[in-house]
Amino acid sequence: MDNLFVIKIGGNIIDDEQQLASFLQSFASITHKKILVHGGGKLATRLAAQLGIPQQMVEGRRITDAETLKIVTMVYAGYINKNIVAQLQAAGCNALGLSGADGNVIQSHKRNTANLDYGFVGDVDHINTAFLSNCLTQQITPVLSPITHSGNGLLLNTNADTIAQETAKALSHHFNVTLIYIFEKKGVLLNVADESSVIQRIDTTNYELFKKEGVVKDGMIPKLDNAFSALNAGVKKVMIGRADELMALIEGNAGTTVTHEA
Amino acid sequence: MDNLFVIKIGGNIIDDEQQLASFLQSFASITHKKILVHGGGKLATRLAAQLGIPQQMVEGRRITDAETLKIVTMVYAGYINKNIVAQLQAAGCNALGLSGADGNVIQSHKRNTANLDYGFVGDVDHINTAFLSNCLTQQITPVLSPITHSGNGLLLNTNADTIAQETAKALSHHFNVTLIYIFEKKGVLLNVADESSVIQRIDTTNYELFKKEGVVKDGMIPKLDNAFSALNAGVKKVMIGRADELMALIEGNAGTTVTHEA
Repeated sequence: MDNLFVIKIGGNIIDDEQQLASFLQSFASITHKKILVHGGGKLATRLAAQLGIPQQMVEGRRITDAETLKIVTMVYAGYINKNIVAQLQAAGCNALGLSGADGNVIQSHKRNTANLDYGFVGDVDHINTAFLSNCLTQQITPVLSPITHSGNGLLLNTNADTIAQETAKALSHHFNVTLIYIFEKKGVLLNVADESSVIQRIDTTNYELFKKEGVVKDGMIPKLDNAFSALNAGVKKVMIGRADELMALIEGNAGTTVTHEA
Repeated sequence: MDNLFVIKIGGNIIDDEQQLASFLQSFASITHKKILVHGGGKLATRLAAQLGIPQQMVEGRRITDAETLKIVTMVYAGYINKNIVAQLQAAGCNALGLSGADGNVIQSHKRNTANLDYGFVGDVDHINTAFLSNCLTQQITPVLSPITHSGNGLLLNTNADTIAQETAKALSHHFNVTLIYIFEKKGVLLNVADESSVIQRIDTTNYELFKKEGVVKDGMIPKLDNAFSALNAGVKKVMIGRADELMALIEGNAGTTVTHEA
Protein backbone atom coordinates (compact mmCIF):
# COMPACT_ATOMS: atom_id res chain seq x y z
CA MET A 1 0.00 0.00 0.00
CA ASP A 2 1.13 3.56 -0.72
CA ASN A 3 1.81 5.99 2.09
CA LEU A 4 -0.75 8.73 2.60
CA PHE A 5 -0.42 11.77 4.87
CA VAL A 6 -3.61 13.41 6.13
CA ILE A 7 -2.59 16.76 7.59
CA LYS A 8 -4.84 19.09 9.54
CA ILE A 9 -4.23 22.80 10.11
CA GLY A 10 -6.32 25.14 12.24
CA GLY A 11 -6.85 28.82 12.90
CA ASN A 12 -3.40 29.50 14.37
CA ILE A 13 -1.84 28.84 10.94
CA ILE A 14 -4.70 30.08 8.77
CA ASP A 15 -4.86 33.47 10.50
CA ASP A 16 -1.14 34.14 9.95
CA GLU A 17 -0.54 34.93 6.27
CA GLN A 18 3.24 34.45 6.45
CA GLN A 19 3.08 31.20 8.40
CA LEU A 20 0.36 29.84 6.12
CA ALA A 21 2.35 30.68 2.98
CA SER A 22 5.46 28.99 4.32
CA PHE A 23 3.50 25.95 5.54
CA LEU A 24 1.86 25.57 2.09
CA GLN A 25 5.28 25.71 0.41
CA SER A 26 6.44 22.80 2.58
CA PHE A 27 3.19 20.92 2.14
CA ALA A 28 3.43 21.25 -1.67
CA SER A 29 6.91 19.73 -1.60
CA ILE A 30 5.78 16.49 0.11
CA THR A 31 6.36 13.81 -2.52
CA HIS A 32 3.99 11.27 -0.91
CA LYS A 33 0.25 11.21 -1.47
CA LYS A 34 -1.38 13.81 0.78
CA ILE A 35 -4.64 15.41 1.86
CA LEU A 36 -4.94 18.77 3.60
CA VAL A 37 -7.81 19.43 6.02
CA HIS A 38 -8.28 22.99 7.22
CA GLY A 39 -10.39 24.54 9.93
CA GLY A 40 -11.68 28.07 10.22
CA GLY A 41 -10.06 30.98 11.90
CA LYS A 42 -10.84 34.44 13.11
CA LEU A 43 -12.13 35.74 9.77
CA ALA A 44 -15.58 34.16 10.26
CA THR A 45 -15.90 35.67 13.75
CA ARG A 46 -14.72 39.06 12.48
CA LEU A 47 -17.13 38.98 9.54
CA ALA A 48 -20.03 38.02 11.82
CA ALA A 49 -19.17 40.95 14.10
CA GLN A 50 -18.98 43.37 11.16
CA LEU A 51 -22.37 42.17 9.95
CA GLY A 52 -23.86 42.39 13.45
CA ILE A 53 -24.60 38.69 13.70
CA PRO A 54 -24.25 37.67 17.36
CA GLN A 55 -22.07 34.57 17.84
CA GLN A 56 -23.09 32.16 20.55
CA MET A 57 -20.35 29.89 21.91
CA VAL A 58 -21.22 26.97 24.19
CA GLU A 59 -18.35 24.97 25.69
CA GLY A 60 -15.96 26.33 23.07
CA ARG A 61 -18.24 25.38 20.21
CA ARG A 62 -19.92 27.85 17.92
CA ILE A 63 -23.69 27.57 17.70
CA THR A 64 -24.35 27.69 13.97
CA ASP A 65 -27.60 29.50 13.22
CA ALA A 66 -28.72 30.08 9.61
CA GLU A 67 -26.84 33.38 9.26
CA THR A 68 -23.68 31.92 10.79
CA LEU A 69 -23.88 28.93 8.44
CA LYS A 70 -23.91 31.39 5.52
CA ILE A 71 -20.78 33.06 6.91
CA VAL A 72 -18.81 29.87 7.57
CA THR A 73 -19.77 28.52 4.12
CA MET A 74 -18.47 31.73 2.54
CA VAL A 75 -15.31 31.94 4.63
CA TYR A 76 -14.30 28.27 5.04
CA ALA A 77 -15.43 26.71 1.74
CA GLY A 78 -14.90 29.95 -0.21
CA TYR A 79 -12.24 32.37 0.92
CA ILE A 80 -9.91 30.14 2.96
CA ASN A 81 -10.25 27.03 0.79
CA LYS A 82 -9.73 28.81 -2.54
CA ASN A 83 -6.79 30.85 -1.31
CA ILE A 84 -5.08 27.72 -0.03
CA VAL A 85 -5.73 25.95 -3.34
CA ALA A 86 -4.43 28.88 -5.42
CA GLN A 87 -1.25 29.02 -3.33
CA LEU A 88 -0.71 25.26 -3.62
CA GLN A 89 -1.20 25.46 -7.39
CA ALA A 90 1.41 28.23 -7.52
CA ALA A 91 3.77 25.92 -5.61
CA GLY A 92 3.27 23.15 -8.16
CA CYS A 93 0.82 21.04 -6.17
CA ASN A 94 -2.34 20.16 -8.12
CA ALA A 95 -4.81 20.86 -5.31
CA LEU A 96 -8.58 20.39 -5.46
CA GLY A 97 -10.63 22.27 -2.87
CA LEU A 98 -13.69 20.46 -1.59
CA SER A 99 -16.62 20.90 0.70
CA GLY A 100 -18.31 17.66 1.72
CA ALA A 101 -21.00 18.29 -0.90
CA ASP A 102 -18.49 18.30 -3.77
CA GLY A 103 -18.37 14.85 -5.32
CA ASN A 104 -20.45 13.80 -2.27
CA VAL A 105 -17.15 13.50 -0.47
CA ILE A 106 -18.38 13.84 3.14
CA GLN A 107 -21.93 13.17 4.16
CA SER A 108 -23.09 14.08 7.65
CA HIS A 109 -26.25 14.51 9.68
CA LYS A 110 -27.41 17.49 11.71
CA ARG A 111 -26.33 16.96 15.30
CA ASN A 112 -29.26 16.08 17.47
CA THR A 113 -28.69 16.44 21.19
CA ALA A 114 -31.46 16.50 23.78
CA ASN A 115 -30.16 19.37 25.88
CA LEU A 116 -28.61 21.72 23.34
CA ASP A 117 -29.34 22.70 19.74
CA TYR A 118 -26.00 23.31 18.01
CA GLY A 119 -27.84 24.53 14.92
CA PHE A 120 -26.41 23.65 11.53
CA VAL A 121 -23.61 21.45 12.83
CA GLY A 122 -22.91 18.12 11.16
CA ASP A 123 -21.55 14.86 12.52
CA VAL A 124 -19.79 12.79 9.86
CA ASP A 125 -21.57 9.69 8.53
CA HIS A 126 -19.67 8.73 5.42
CA ILE A 127 -16.43 9.48 3.58
CA ASN A 128 -16.38 8.86 -0.18
CA THR A 129 -13.10 6.92 -0.31
CA ALA A 130 -13.54 6.03 -3.99
CA PHE A 131 -13.58 9.70 -4.95
CA LEU A 132 -10.58 10.57 -2.75
CA SER A 133 -8.54 7.52 -3.84
CA ASN A 134 -9.24 8.39 -7.44
CA CYS A 135 -7.96 11.95 -6.91
CA LEU A 136 -4.81 10.67 -5.19
CA THR A 137 -4.13 8.17 -7.97
CA GLN A 138 -4.26 11.03 -10.45
CA GLN A 139 -1.75 13.08 -8.40
CA ILE A 140 -4.53 15.45 -7.32
CA THR A 141 -4.32 16.67 -3.71
CA PRO A 142 -7.70 17.10 -1.99
CA VAL A 143 -8.05 20.14 0.29
CA LEU A 144 -11.01 19.59 2.61
CA SER A 145 -12.91 22.50 4.17
CA PRO A 146 -14.96 21.95 7.34
CA ILE A 147 -18.33 22.22 5.59
CA THR A 148 -20.17 18.96 4.89
CA HIS A 149 -23.63 18.15 3.54
CA SER A 150 -26.61 16.12 4.67
CA GLY A 151 -27.45 14.62 1.30
CA ASN A 152 -30.81 16.37 1.25
CA GLY A 153 -29.55 19.81 0.38
CA LEU A 154 -28.29 21.10 3.74
CA LEU A 155 -24.75 22.32 4.25
CA LEU A 156 -23.44 21.69 7.77
CA ASN A 157 -20.59 23.21 9.79
CA THR A 158 -18.31 20.35 10.85
CA ASN A 159 -15.32 20.06 13.16
CA ALA A 160 -12.10 19.91 11.10
CA ASP A 161 -10.32 17.58 13.57
CA THR A 162 -13.17 15.11 13.12
CA ILE A 163 -13.02 15.42 9.32
CA ALA A 164 -9.28 14.70 9.39
CA GLN A 165 -9.78 11.72 11.68
CA GLU A 166 -12.70 10.20 9.77
CA THR A 167 -10.91 10.72 6.44
CA ALA A 168 -7.75 9.06 7.78
CA LYS A 169 -9.74 6.15 9.18
CA ALA A 170 -11.76 5.58 6.02
CA LEU A 171 -8.68 5.68 3.80
CA SER A 172 -6.66 3.34 6.02
CA HIS A 173 -8.14 0.42 4.08
CA HIS A 174 -6.45 1.71 0.92
CA PHE A 175 -3.26 3.38 2.16
CA ASN A 176 -0.69 3.37 4.97
CA VAL A 177 -2.10 6.47 6.62
CA THR A 178 -0.24 8.89 8.86
CA LEU A 179 -2.53 11.50 10.42
CA ILE A 180 -0.76 14.72 11.42
CA TYR A 181 -2.36 17.39 13.61
CA ILE A 182 -0.53 20.68 13.24
CA PHE A 183 -0.46 22.27 16.66
CA GLU A 184 0.88 25.52 18.17
CA LYS A 185 3.49 23.56 20.18
CA LYS A 186 6.23 21.23 18.95
CA GLY A 187 4.22 18.28 20.27
CA VAL A 188 2.79 17.04 23.55
CA LEU A 189 5.09 18.55 26.16
CA LEU A 190 6.22 17.05 29.47
CA ASN A 191 6.44 20.61 30.75
CA VAL A 192 4.07 23.06 29.03
CA ALA A 193 6.50 25.92 29.57
CA ASP A 194 9.38 24.10 27.88
CA GLU A 195 9.18 23.57 24.09
CA SER A 196 12.18 21.24 24.27
CA SER A 197 10.31 18.75 26.50
CA VAL A 198 8.42 17.08 23.63
CA ILE A 199 7.25 13.55 24.43
CA GLN A 200 8.46 11.65 21.37
CA ARG A 201 6.16 8.63 21.70
CA ILE A 202 2.89 8.09 23.44
CA ASP A 203 1.65 4.51 23.52
CA THR A 204 -1.22 2.84 25.35
CA THR A 205 1.03 2.04 28.34
CA ASN A 206 2.69 5.39 29.01
CA TYR A 207 -0.54 7.26 28.12
CA GLU A 208 -2.21 5.86 31.26
CA LEU A 209 0.78 6.92 33.29
CA PHE A 210 0.88 10.43 31.78
CA LYS A 211 -2.82 10.86 32.56
CA LYS A 212 -2.40 9.62 36.14
CA GLU A 213 0.56 11.97 36.71
CA GLY A 214 -1.34 14.91 35.20
CA VAL A 215 1.27 15.42 32.44
CA VAL A 216 -1.53 15.00 29.90
CA LYS A 217 -4.72 16.83 30.86
CA ASP A 218 -7.61 19.07 29.78
CA GLY A 219 -8.02 19.53 26.03
CA MET A 220 -5.16 17.15 25.27
CA ILE A 221 -7.08 14.12 26.60
CA PRO A 222 -9.88 14.08 23.99
CA LYS A 223 -7.25 14.77 21.27
CA LEU A 224 -5.23 11.73 22.33
CA ASP A 225 -8.32 9.58 22.88
CA ASN A 226 -9.26 10.40 19.28
CA ALA A 227 -5.74 9.54 18.15
CA PHE A 228 -5.99 6.08 19.76
CA SER A 229 -9.43 5.58 18.24
CA ALA A 230 -7.95 6.39 14.81
CA LEU A 231 -5.17 3.84 15.43
CA ASN A 232 -7.77 1.25 16.45
CA ALA A 233 -9.56 1.89 13.15
CA GLY A 234 -6.46 1.18 11.07
CA VAL A 235 -4.52 4.45 10.89
CA LYS A 236 -0.83 3.62 11.19
CA LYS A 237 0.49 6.65 13.03
CA VAL A 238 -0.91 9.84 14.53
CA MET A 239 1.48 12.75 14.97
CA ILE A 240 1.18 16.11 16.68
CA GLY A 241 3.64 18.87 15.87
CA ARG A 242 4.37 22.39 14.73
CA ALA A 243 3.83 23.77 11.22
CA ASP A 244 7.46 24.87 10.76
CA GLU A 245 8.60 21.30 11.41
CA LEU A 246 6.35 19.72 8.76
CA MET A 247 9.15 18.13 6.76
CA ALA A 248 10.71 16.64 9.91
CA LEU A 249 7.27 15.36 10.95
CA ILE A 250 6.88 13.63 7.58
CA GLU A 251 10.26 11.96 8.10
CA GLY A 252 9.29 10.98 11.67
CA ASN A 253 11.97 13.18 13.22
CA ALA A 254 9.83 15.69 15.11
CA GLY A 255 6.69 16.05 17.17
CA THR A 256 4.87 13.49 19.24
CA THR A 257 4.00 10.15 17.65
CA VAL A 258 1.02 8.28 19.04
CA THR A 259 1.23 4.53 18.42
CA HIS A 260 -0.13 1.29 19.78
CA GLU A 261 3.22 -0.38 20.34
CA ALA A 262 5.25 0.32 23.45
CA MET B 1 -18.65 11.75 -29.69
CA ASP B 2 -20.97 12.08 -26.71
CA ASN B 3 -23.28 15.03 -26.35
CA LEU B 4 -22.33 17.61 -23.74
CA PHE B 5 -24.45 20.51 -22.53
CA VAL B 6 -22.69 23.54 -21.06
CA ILE B 7 -25.35 25.62 -19.33
CA LYS B 8 -24.86 29.08 -17.89
CA ILE B 9 -27.10 30.74 -15.31
CA GLY B 10 -26.82 34.28 -13.99
CA GLY B 11 -28.06 36.49 -11.20
CA ASN B 12 -31.71 36.51 -12.26
CA ILE B 13 -31.96 32.79 -11.40
CA ILE B 14 -29.43 32.71 -8.55
CA ASP B 15 -31.16 35.52 -6.66
CA ASP B 16 -34.55 33.78 -6.75
CA GLU B 17 -34.50 30.83 -4.33
CA GLN B 18 -37.64 29.20 -5.75
CA GLN B 19 -36.59 29.57 -9.38
CA LEU B 20 -33.09 28.31 -8.63
CA ALA B 21 -34.40 25.23 -6.80
CA SER B 22 -36.74 24.37 -9.65
CA PHE B 23 -34.02 24.98 -12.27
CA LEU B 24 -31.59 22.72 -10.38
CA GLN B 25 -34.22 19.96 -10.23
CA SER B 26 -34.53 20.10 -14.03
CA PHE B 27 -30.79 20.36 -14.52
CA ALA B 28 -30.21 17.28 -12.33
CA SER B 29 -32.63 15.27 -14.47
CA ILE B 30 -30.68 15.86 -17.72
CA THR B 31 -29.40 12.43 -18.69
CA HIS B 32 -26.67 13.74 -21.01
CA LYS B 33 -23.24 14.84 -19.84
CA LYS B 34 -23.47 18.38 -18.50
CA ILE B 35 -21.57 21.29 -16.94
CA LEU B 36 -23.17 24.15 -15.03
CA VAL B 37 -21.55 27.59 -15.05
CA HIS B 38 -22.94 30.17 -12.65
CA GLY B 39 -22.43 33.88 -12.27
CA GLY B 40 -22.86 36.06 -9.24
CA GLY B 41 -25.93 37.89 -8.14
CA LYS B 42 -27.02 40.57 -5.75
CA LEU B 43 -25.59 38.90 -2.63
CA ALA B 44 -22.05 40.14 -3.32
CA THR B 45 -23.28 43.71 -3.83
CA ARG B 46 -25.41 43.50 -0.69
CA LEU B 47 -22.55 42.11 1.37
CA ALA B 48 -20.19 44.83 0.12
CA ALA B 49 -22.76 47.46 1.12
CA GLN B 50 -23.20 45.93 4.59
CA LEU B 51 -19.44 45.92 5.08
CA GLY B 52 -19.13 49.48 3.80
CA ILE B 53 -16.96 48.55 0.82
CA PRO B 54 -17.76 50.98 -2.01
CA GLN B 55 -18.46 49.25 -5.33
CA GLN B 56 -17.25 50.95 -8.45
CA MET B 57 -18.99 50.00 -11.70
CA VAL B 58 -17.57 51.10 -15.06
CA GLU B 59 -19.60 50.32 -18.19
CA GLY B 60 -21.60 47.70 -16.30
CA ARG B 61 -18.49 45.96 -15.01
CA ARG B 62 -17.51 45.75 -11.39
CA ILE B 63 -14.04 47.07 -10.57
CA THR B 64 -12.59 44.35 -8.37
CA ASP B 65 -10.33 45.82 -5.69
CA ALA B 66 -8.71 43.58 -3.05
CA GLU B 67 -11.66 43.79 -0.63
CA THR B 68 -14.17 43.12 -3.41
CA LEU B 69 -12.15 40.11 -4.58
CA LYS B 70 -12.45 38.72 -1.04
CA ILE B 71 -16.22 39.18 -1.17
CA VAL B 72 -16.75 37.62 -4.61
CA THR B 73 -14.49 34.69 -3.68
CA MET B 74 -16.58 34.10 -0.55
CA VAL B 75 -19.94 34.57 -2.25
CA TYR B 76 -19.38 33.03 -5.71
CA ALA B 77 -16.92 30.19 -4.99
CA GLY B 78 -18.27 29.64 -1.46
CA TYR B 79 -21.89 30.40 -0.71
CA ILE B 80 -23.47 30.20 -4.18
CA ASN B 81 -21.33 27.35 -5.51
CA LYS B 82 -21.70 25.11 -2.45
CA ASN B 83 -25.43 25.69 -2.15
CA ILE B 84 -25.92 24.77 -5.80
CA VAL B 85 -23.79 21.65 -5.36
CA ALA B 86 -25.65 20.56 -2.20
CA GLN B 87 -29.00 20.97 -3.98
CA LEU B 88 -27.80 19.02 -7.02
CA GLN B 89 -26.51 16.23 -4.75
CA ALA B 90 -29.94 16.13 -3.08
CA ALA B 91 -31.49 15.78 -6.54
CA GLY B 92 -29.25 12.81 -7.35
CA CYS B 93 -26.71 14.64 -9.51
CA ASN B 94 -23.10 14.04 -8.43
CA ALA B 95 -21.95 17.64 -8.72
CA LEU B 96 -18.43 18.94 -8.08
CA GLY B 97 -18.08 22.66 -7.40
CA LEU B 98 -14.97 24.29 -8.77
CA SER B 99 -13.16 27.57 -8.90
CA GLY B 100 -10.57 27.86 -11.64
CA ALA B 101 -7.84 27.09 -9.10
CA ASP B 102 -9.31 23.68 -8.21
CA GLY B 103 -7.58 21.02 -10.26
CA ASN B 104 -6.09 23.96 -12.18
CA VAL B 105 -9.29 23.92 -14.20
CA ILE B 106 -9.25 27.53 -15.48
CA GLN B 107 -6.12 29.60 -15.68
CA SER B 108 -6.36 33.29 -16.49
CA HIS B 109 -4.30 36.46 -16.41
CA LYS B 110 -5.06 39.78 -14.75
CA ARG B 111 -6.67 42.05 -17.32
CA ASN B 112 -4.29 44.72 -18.45
CA THR B 113 -5.87 47.66 -20.23
CA ALA B 114 -4.16 50.96 -20.87
CA ASN B 115 -7.02 53.27 -19.92
CA LEU B 116 -8.72 51.43 -17.06
CA ASP B 117 -7.59 49.20 -14.22
CA TYR B 118 -10.31 46.62 -13.65
CA GLY B 119 -8.46 45.35 -10.58
CA PHE B 120 -8.48 41.63 -9.86
CA VAL B 121 -10.32 40.64 -13.04
CA GLY B 122 -9.12 37.68 -15.06
CA ASP B 123 -9.24 36.93 -18.77
CA VAL B 124 -9.24 33.20 -19.51
CA ASP B 125 -6.05 31.65 -20.92
CA HIS B 126 -6.53 27.93 -20.55
CA ILE B 127 -9.21 25.35 -19.77
CA ASN B 128 -8.06 22.01 -18.33
CA THR B 129 -10.06 19.76 -20.66
CA ALA B 130 -8.39 16.58 -19.35
CA PHE B 131 -9.67 17.27 -15.84
CA LEU B 132 -13.20 18.14 -17.01
CA SER B 133 -13.42 15.18 -19.45
CA ASN B 134 -12.28 12.88 -16.69
CA CYS B 135 -15.04 14.16 -14.37
CA LEU B 136 -17.67 13.75 -17.09
CA THR B 137 -16.51 10.20 -17.88
CA GLN B 138 -16.98 9.35 -14.19
CA GLN B 139 -20.53 10.78 -14.21
CA ILE B 140 -19.41 13.76 -12.16
CA THR B 141 -21.00 17.09 -13.09
CA PRO B 142 -18.66 20.10 -12.79
CA VAL B 143 -20.21 23.31 -11.41
CA LEU B 144 -17.98 26.23 -12.33
CA SER B 145 -17.94 29.46 -10.32
CA PRO B 146 -16.69 32.70 -11.91
CA ILE B 147 -13.44 32.80 -9.94
CA THR B 148 -10.29 31.72 -11.78
CA HIS B 149 -6.59 31.78 -10.88
CA SER B 150 -3.42 33.16 -12.39
CA GLY B 151 -1.21 30.17 -11.65
CA ASN B 152 1.00 32.24 -9.37
CA GLY B 153 -1.35 32.36 -6.41
CA LEU B 154 -3.83 35.07 -7.42
CA LEU B 155 -7.55 34.47 -7.57
CA LEU B 156 -9.31 36.54 -10.25
CA ASN B 157 -12.94 37.57 -10.76
CA THR B 158 -13.97 36.35 -14.22
CA ASN B 159 -17.03 36.85 -16.40
CA ALA B 160 -19.25 33.76 -16.24
CA ASP B 161 -20.45 34.10 -19.87
CA THR B 162 -16.81 33.95 -20.95
CA ILE B 163 -16.12 30.92 -18.76
CA ALA B 164 -19.10 29.11 -20.30
CA GLN B 165 -17.98 30.02 -23.81
CA GLU B 166 -14.32 29.09 -23.33
CA THR B 167 -15.26 25.82 -21.62
CA ALA B 168 -17.66 24.94 -24.43
CA LYS B 169 -15.03 25.77 -27.06
CA ALA B 170 -12.25 23.82 -25.39
CA LEU B 171 -14.43 20.74 -24.91
CA SER B 172 -15.75 20.80 -28.48
CA HIS B 173 -12.74 18.68 -29.49
CA HIS B 174 -13.97 15.89 -27.20
CA PHE B 175 -17.76 16.23 -27.26
CA ASN B 176 -20.69 17.43 -29.36
CA VAL B 177 -21.19 20.57 -27.35
CA THR B 178 -24.40 22.57 -26.99
CA LEU B 179 -23.89 25.83 -25.12
CA ILE B 180 -27.03 27.18 -23.45
CA TYR B 181 -27.31 30.68 -22.00
CA ILE B 182 -30.21 30.92 -19.59
CA PHE B 183 -31.79 34.30 -20.08
CA GLU B 184 -34.71 36.25 -18.56
CA LYS B 185 -36.67 36.00 -21.85
CA LYS B 186 -37.78 32.91 -23.80
CA GLY B 187 -35.11 33.66 -26.38
CA VAL B 188 -34.14 36.47 -28.74
CA LEU B 189 -37.44 38.24 -29.45
CA LEU B 190 -38.61 39.86 -32.68
CA ASN B 191 -40.61 42.21 -30.49
CA VAL B 192 -39.17 42.77 -27.02
CA ALA B 193 -42.64 43.31 -25.57
CA ASP B 194 -43.96 39.99 -26.88
CA GLU B 195 -42.60 36.77 -25.31
CA SER B 196 -44.28 34.74 -28.04
CA SER B 197 -42.15 36.37 -30.76
CA VAL B 198 -39.08 34.17 -30.16
CA ILE B 199 -36.76 33.95 -33.18
CA GLN B 200 -36.24 30.18 -33.45
CA ARG B 201 -33.06 30.24 -35.50
CA ILE B 202 -30.40 32.83 -36.03
CA ASP B 203 -27.83 32.03 -38.70
CA THR B 204 -25.09 34.10 -40.29
CA THR B 205 -27.44 35.29 -43.05
CA ASN B 206 -30.47 36.44 -41.10
CA TYR B 207 -28.23 37.81 -38.29
CA GLU B 208 -26.96 40.54 -40.65
CA LEU B 209 -30.54 41.34 -41.58
CA PHE B 210 -31.70 41.45 -37.95
CA LYS B 211 -28.88 43.80 -37.09
CA LYS B 212 -29.60 46.07 -40.08
CA GLU B 213 -33.32 46.20 -39.17
CA GLY B 214 -32.51 46.90 -35.52
CA VAL B 215 -34.33 43.75 -34.31
CA VAL B 216 -31.10 42.69 -32.65
CA LYS B 217 -29.32 45.53 -30.84
CA ASP B 218 -27.47 46.75 -27.75
CA GLY B 219 -26.36 44.04 -25.32
CA MET B 220 -27.66 41.28 -27.57
CA ILE B 221 -25.05 41.99 -30.28
CA PRO B 222 -21.94 41.02 -28.25
CA LYS B 223 -23.86 37.98 -26.94
CA LEU B 224 -24.60 36.79 -30.48
CA ASP B 225 -21.12 37.70 -31.76
CA ASN B 226 -19.75 35.49 -28.99
CA ALA B 227 -22.18 32.74 -29.96
CA PHE B 228 -20.90 32.79 -33.56
CA SER B 229 -17.31 32.81 -32.35
CA ALA B 230 -18.09 29.70 -30.24
CA LEU B 231 -19.58 28.04 -33.34
CA ASN B 232 -16.48 28.95 -35.33
CA ALA B 233 -14.38 27.26 -32.67
CA GLY B 234 -16.27 23.97 -32.91
CA VAL B 235 -19.29 24.30 -30.62
CA LYS B 236 -22.24 22.65 -32.37
CA LYS B 237 -25.12 24.78 -31.17
CA VAL B 238 -25.62 27.86 -29.02
CA MET B 239 -29.04 28.35 -27.47
CA ILE B 240 -30.62 31.19 -25.54
CA GLY B 241 -33.75 30.59 -23.48
CA ARG B 242 -35.59 30.73 -20.19
CA ALA B 243 -34.83 28.62 -17.11
CA ASP B 244 -38.33 27.16 -16.87
CA GLU B 245 -37.98 25.79 -20.40
CA LEU B 246 -34.69 23.96 -19.74
CA MET B 247 -35.98 20.52 -20.70
CA ALA B 248 -37.49 21.85 -23.95
CA LEU B 249 -34.21 23.64 -24.68
CA ILE B 250 -32.30 20.37 -24.23
CA GLU B 251 -34.67 18.72 -26.71
CA GLY B 252 -34.28 21.64 -29.13
CA ASN B 253 -37.93 22.67 -28.81
CA ALA B 254 -37.62 26.09 -27.21
CA GLY B 255 -35.53 29.24 -27.20
CA THR B 256 -33.37 30.69 -29.93
CA THR B 257 -30.80 28.46 -31.61
CA VAL B 258 -27.76 30.12 -33.13
CA THR B 259 -26.20 28.08 -35.93
CA HIS B 260 -24.00 28.50 -38.95
CA GLU B 261 -26.35 26.92 -41.46
CA ALA B 262 -29.20 28.89 -42.96
